[in-house]
Amino acid sequence: MFVVMARTASEAEILGVKSAILGEGLTPYDHAGAERIVIAVIGEIGSRKAALMSRLGGLGGVETVTPISRPFKLTSREFQPENTVIRVLDAVIGDGGLTMMAGPCSVESREQLFETADAVKDAGATILRGGAFKPRTSPYSFQGLGVEALRYLAEARDRTGLPVITEVMEPSQVDIVAEYADILQIGTRNMQNYSLLTAVGRVARPVMLKRGYGATVEEWLMAAEYIVSSGNPNVILCERGIRTFETYTRNTMDLAAVPLVHHLSHLPVIVDPSHATGKRWLVAPLAVGGVAVGADGVMVEVHPDPDAALSDAEQQLTLDQFRAMMAQLIPVHEHVRSMYAVPIDPGAVLAGSAGLAKH
Amino acid sequence: MFVVMARTASEAEILGVKSAILGEGLTPYDHAGAERIVIAVIGEIGSRKAALMSRLGGLGGVETVTPISRPFKLTSREFQPENTVIRVLDAVIGDGGLTMMAGPCSVESREQLFETADAVKDAGATILRGGAFKPRTSPYSFQGLGVEALRYLAEARDRTGLPVITEVMEPSQVDIVAEYADILQIGTRNMQNYSLLTAVGRVARPVMLKRGYGATVEEWLMAAEYIVSSGNPNVILCERGIRTFETYTRNTMDLAAVPLVHHLSHLPVIVDPSHATGKRWLVAPLAVGGVAVGADGVMVEVHPDPDAALSDAEQQLTLDQFRAMMAQLIPVHEHVRSMYAVPIDPGAVLAGSAGLAKH
Amino acid sequence: MFVVMARTASEAEILGVKSAILGEGLTPYDHAGAERIVIAVIGEIGSRKAALMSRLGGLGGVETVTPISRPFKLTSREFQPENTVIRVLDAVIGDGGLTMMAGPCSVESREQLFETADAVKDAGATILRGGAFKPRTSPYSFQGLGVEALRYLAEARDRTGLPVITEVMEPSQVDIVAEYADILQIGTRNMQNYSLLTAVGRVARPVMLKRGYGATVEEWLMAAEYIVSSGNPNVILCERGIRTFETYTRNTMDLAAVPLVHHLSHLPVIVDPSHATGKRWLVAPLAVGGVAVGADGVMVEVHPDPDAALSDAEQQLTLDQFRAMMAQLIPVHEHVRSMYAVPIDPGAVLAGSAGLAKH
Amino acid sequence: MFVVMARTASEAEILGVKSAILGEGLTPYDHAGAERIVIAVIGEIGSRKAALMSRLGGLGGVETVTPISRPFKLTSREFQPENTVIRVLDAVIGDGGLTMMAGPCSVESREQLFETADAVKDAGATILRGGAFKPRTSPYSFQGLGVEALRYLAEARDRTGLPVITEVMEPSQVDIVAEYADILQIGTRNMQNYSLLTAVGRVARPVMLKRGYGATVEEWLMAAEYIVSSGNPNVILCERGIRTFETYTRNTMDLAAVPLVHHLSHLPVIVDPSHATGKRWLVAPLAVGGVAVGADGVMVEVHPDPDAALSDAEQQLTLDQFRAMMAQLIPVHEHVRSMYAVPIDPGAVLAGSAGLAKH
Repeated sequence: MFVVMARTASEAEILGVKSAILGEGLTPYDHAGAERIVIAVIGEIGSRKAALMSRLGGLGGVETVTPISRPFKLTSREFQPENTVIRVLDAVIGDGGLTMMAGPCSVESREQLFETADAVKDAGATILRGGAFKPRTSPYSFQGLGVEALRYLAEARDRTGLPVITEVMEPSQVDIVAEYADILQIGTRNMQNYSLLTAVGRVARPVMLKRGYGATVEEWLMAAEYIVSSGNPNVILCERGIRTFETYTRNTMDLAAVPLVHHLSHLPVIVDPSHATGKRWLVAPLAVGGVAVGADGVMVEVHPDPDAALSDAEQQLTLDQFRAMMAQLIPVHEHVRSMYAVPIDPGAVLAGSAGLAKH
Repeated sequence: MFVVMARTASEAEILGVKSAILGEGLTPYDHAGAERIVIAVIGEIGSRKAALMSRLGGLGGVETVTPISRPFKLTSREFQPENTVIRVLDAVIGDGGLTMMAGPCSVESREQLFETADAVKDAGATILRGGAFKPRTSPYSFQGLGVEALRYLAEARDRTGLPVITEVMEPSQVDIVAEYADILQIGTRNMQNYSLLTAVGRVARPVMLKRGYGATVEEWLMAAEYIVSSGNPNVILCERGIRTFETYTRNTMDLAAVPLVHHLSHLPVIVDPSHATGKRWLVAPLAVGGVAVGADGVMVEVHPDPDAALSDAEQQLTLDQFRAMMAQLIPVHEHVRSMYAVPIDPGAVLAGSAGLAKH
Repeated sequence: MFVVMARTASEAEILGVKSAILGEGLTPYDHAGAERIVIAVIGEIGSRKAALMSRLGGLGGVETVTPISRPFKLTSREFQPENTVIRVLDAVIGDGGLTMMAGPCSVESREQLFETADAVKDAGATILRGGAFKPRTSPYSFQGLGVEALRYLAEARDRTGLPVITEVMEPSQVDIVAEYADILQIGTRNMQNYSLLTAVGRVARPVMLKRGYGATVEEWLMAAEYIVSSGNPNVILCERGIRTFETYTRNTMDLAAVPLVHHLSHLPVIVDPSHATGKRWLVAPLAVGGVAVGADGVMVEVHPDPDAALSDAEQQLTLDQFRAMMAQLIPVHEHVRSMYAVPIDPGAVLAGSAGLAKH
Repeated sequence: MFVVMARTASEAEILGVKSAILGEGLTPYDHAGAERIVIAVIGEIGSRKAALMSRLGGLGGVETVTPISRPFKLTSREFQPENTVIRVLDAVIGDGGLTMMAGPCSVESREQLFETADAVKDAGATILRGGAFKPRTSPYSFQGLGVEALRYLAEARDRTGLPVITEVMEPSQVDIVAEYADILQIGTRNMQNYSLLTAVGRVARPVMLKRGYGATVEEWLMAAEYIVSSGNPNVILCERGIRTFETYTRNTMDLAAVPLVHHLSHLPVIVDPSHATGKRWLVAPLAVGGVAVGADGVMVEVHPDPDAALSDAEQQLTLDQFRAMMAQLIPVHEHVRSMYAVPIDPGAVLAGSAGLAKH
């Protein structure tokens, strides 16, 4: 349940509510919005619900107490009506601007990375991506350059000023990756690797959480909840396609997930048309489509010579294709920006929730 | 296989090729493009392939003979490189303009239809939709007003000038529906009702073919092939969502299917965000997304009082919501129009096909 | 809702209830079980519910009135607790025996059909299958011999004594197919062809309804409801695989659907491992699996020379393979027969329903 | 590629082949079958293929060299034609016997575990299951008793003699879990957690690998390949349902995967009807179905008082239900045992492979 404090609530009253929650063996998480403070009550409430709502509702400074049936709490729009905005170096994610993450699938060499980094920066990218540890279906495929790649990424950041994002695959890698990279990525196969989610929840780096290719939107938000409830509020969601019976494309990009997540949660959402489609010539249209449904940004794979790439050759853009795509994306983003900038009415959100809950 | 005639081929040479094909017990279908004529050879070719290619290649006026591994022939981009453009009254579909089909899920009364028709026309709709015969999961649900609704639709067309589209559910209904309506719709559940496809293939009305909710893009094009090979070249495809494990939305809208179909086929593609999402507040973002990936148009359900609707209450837009959506759609369409207007290079298409075939 | 009559209810009391229902503008359907009569009330009840339950409950001879939240009524286990048993010539379906439907995918010639029919009969088949009108993805594939095949099927029935089953594809074919065949089949692509369902609902032949490859169990039962509510209670359900992301097999056979349908409905269920797997060597294990989960029978495709077949070559069994499979199936069926013969406790069914409804 | 040695090959010839492979920068893995030795050549072969096959084929003691297009190598039936048989204490898995894994979803207390362990042993279980570390969708749900549960499991093993299986969720837990448990389980959400797969590949405990709910059979075998190529050949596969659009059941149990895996691989396969269906009353029929398609065993959740369980309450069997299920399973297993005992003909396997490869 959420305890909404009155605007006039004093510091002492807020502490009073928190200690009452702690006294019940539950955990309070508070969010200070522009206008008021909301305190989420987390833990096994069970049959205490009515009594607890009544008790907390009677405390000083409390405006209302709302029961929440959704399984995600801290990541929900009800808890935090305003968007989460994440700042990394000069990049800002979630403020209505267009975040462009671009770079090679795998870091293959210093030269390949630098050439790509310089080119994507010139074309307007705001964040540099590159794989160091690669999750591969086959144990016999190229597994990435590892720490060597992390060093190149850090050099590329120093060279271009772009923050770098790279994947982390297991809890024991979190520290080393966090040492070199600015944003940690959790891959689609690890979306429900709860040990890893908890580990990245304890580190002072934003985390981009890719949707599991077989996961529902609700499970995706629950995975984000693991990270946020472990202490890291800076989570970026990334839709990268789900698995269906269609076989022309590698996966089916679920673009309805973008406005749906914006409705249910305050976290920013990025789309990844490279993995979703698996075909180079489908990347640009789907990137434009993603921005058109309100995505906060796009991640694409770019390689100076895709046909020679050590992984995902079929879906990486050339540098020229990336430049051409940027020229298409920017004006569409400018156009739809106002469409999605309307402030969220918390009342509407709650009403909308009811509709969803019926499902 | 396709026989590509030289630009200089004479009428007699064209006839010579056709009669050679007929002499083999096969059927020739010809398409006169802007620059040259292509003749598709349809039928069971089997082991004759090499000999037949050689024989046809040696006939007068023949430039090349191309084997085609794709199962769809007449609907393929190889057979007809330029887009199919369909004209109905004042509406034009497939020419790069924005086709807007709008109207109630079911025609419920003369008043309800007229009020909706007037409003959607004012807001920029180019085609009026309305269900007369309704396919319902339950035999006990409202099944539509039938012929009475057809009459109202014809009246609404006379009143507004908008061509009308409505669903036909069985071969024996084709004549009566074609008498009143301007475009016949085949619903998602009937996408592989081959008797019905053949029946609408013989009538002089454009047909909009919705994708089966469990159908692949290839099967969808094969269903269109049934209509075209029966004699009706005016087929509009409509993506309306496929069935996946995600349950927040009614279906998952497969927006990659739009550029994919434009790559594989010359037929226009419309998106239907009302059925794809099943939620009113997701319709506008997905309509914008559909236009952004290059759809030739959008179909939406609009009702003067959605909550009182006899079917699909949750997903119909109010008249005001439709007007607001149009204001968002038109400038996005203007913007992306040039992006998708680049003429298709048949060589690229064939190269692209090879890529797809590998899959 | 269902009106359960007392065991002692008189004919006049039963008529009294029915006329009360008709007087409300609703339709009564009655089922005379072994012990008592249940009358289903079908139609738009809406807000009258409480008043109507109270009124009908007060009529003479009425024991209880039960509201039903499920969308399927006449096909539900609540309406008819005992299994539907269907008799066609010497074959009995749904009585706990093993129904074996076997024969070629398509009837290709008199000789091919007779050779197959004689062999499958000798090996223990109880029903002969064979396609006359074939629904094919491509308009250019073999579409079946049509009426000629129907004549051969009728001859094969006279020769072997086995009832024959064949597919009907459109309402206008129902009469001619019913003239020659003993059981009409509705194919997976036509599961929601409501005009066809209604048409076969009016004919005096049992109907086997294949599950749509993209359909839920609930939609499948709703399709059966169309047939039963049109007047034909003799419906056999057939699970033939659903579409998933797995690509090694043609479809994914949903064997849980068998006990689930037996729980929800009184109709018999057959499994079709030929279409579900698409691979000859997977047919026998899945047939055994189907019988083991309680299926009332199995349908398989058998051909004297599968590699020369005009359709579905990869999945048809040879005559020898069919004989070997029967030798495996019969003892497993004998063994599990008692496991599934326990009479259904209607109380348990209703309790179980509640559990399902929560879902 | 695989190098098949002649029966008469000497130790020195075998070493000669291995060192030739190592000399190419590739890795040899050998399997000593009943009749001959096969050496798999693992690594990036690329354009060397023809030359390498010719060179290895010319070495002393080599019978044939076979190229393999499948991505899984060491887990393939071609590499090892005979079944992998795993022995743990008194339990044997994969020898044609019926492996029964039973126990509570979560270990909740010493008493609950012991009561369950005694009862399932009496009823015929051969392995005791119990969750210590629980992967839960919500961070706020019960996460298991951890090491305390491991201790109880070890005590229960000492008490009953049954080997115990429990889940391991991250690389750093592998040592402690291996200290207490006899078999390590990898859960469905971690099927592609490659760090974890590699970690359990280095430990001297058999590993049961659950299929990812969104994973293809090929990806599942590739995940097993990670474990085997890391040094641990004792992998048990477990089919536990995949995600589809059907919503009555929690997942759709893919029973065709059992004979398919037996065809493609030498590893044993267990089915888990508890997670696949999510409904207690569907567990027994699907367990029987799993055994009927040839599964090497069944894993089920059993609890003394399922409605009071801290996790998966709806799907756990009571002790009585488990006993009743065993009485049904054993005779079906006896019956089908001979059906699946036919020795695999490597020629048939290779022929079958070709069929699959076409797909």
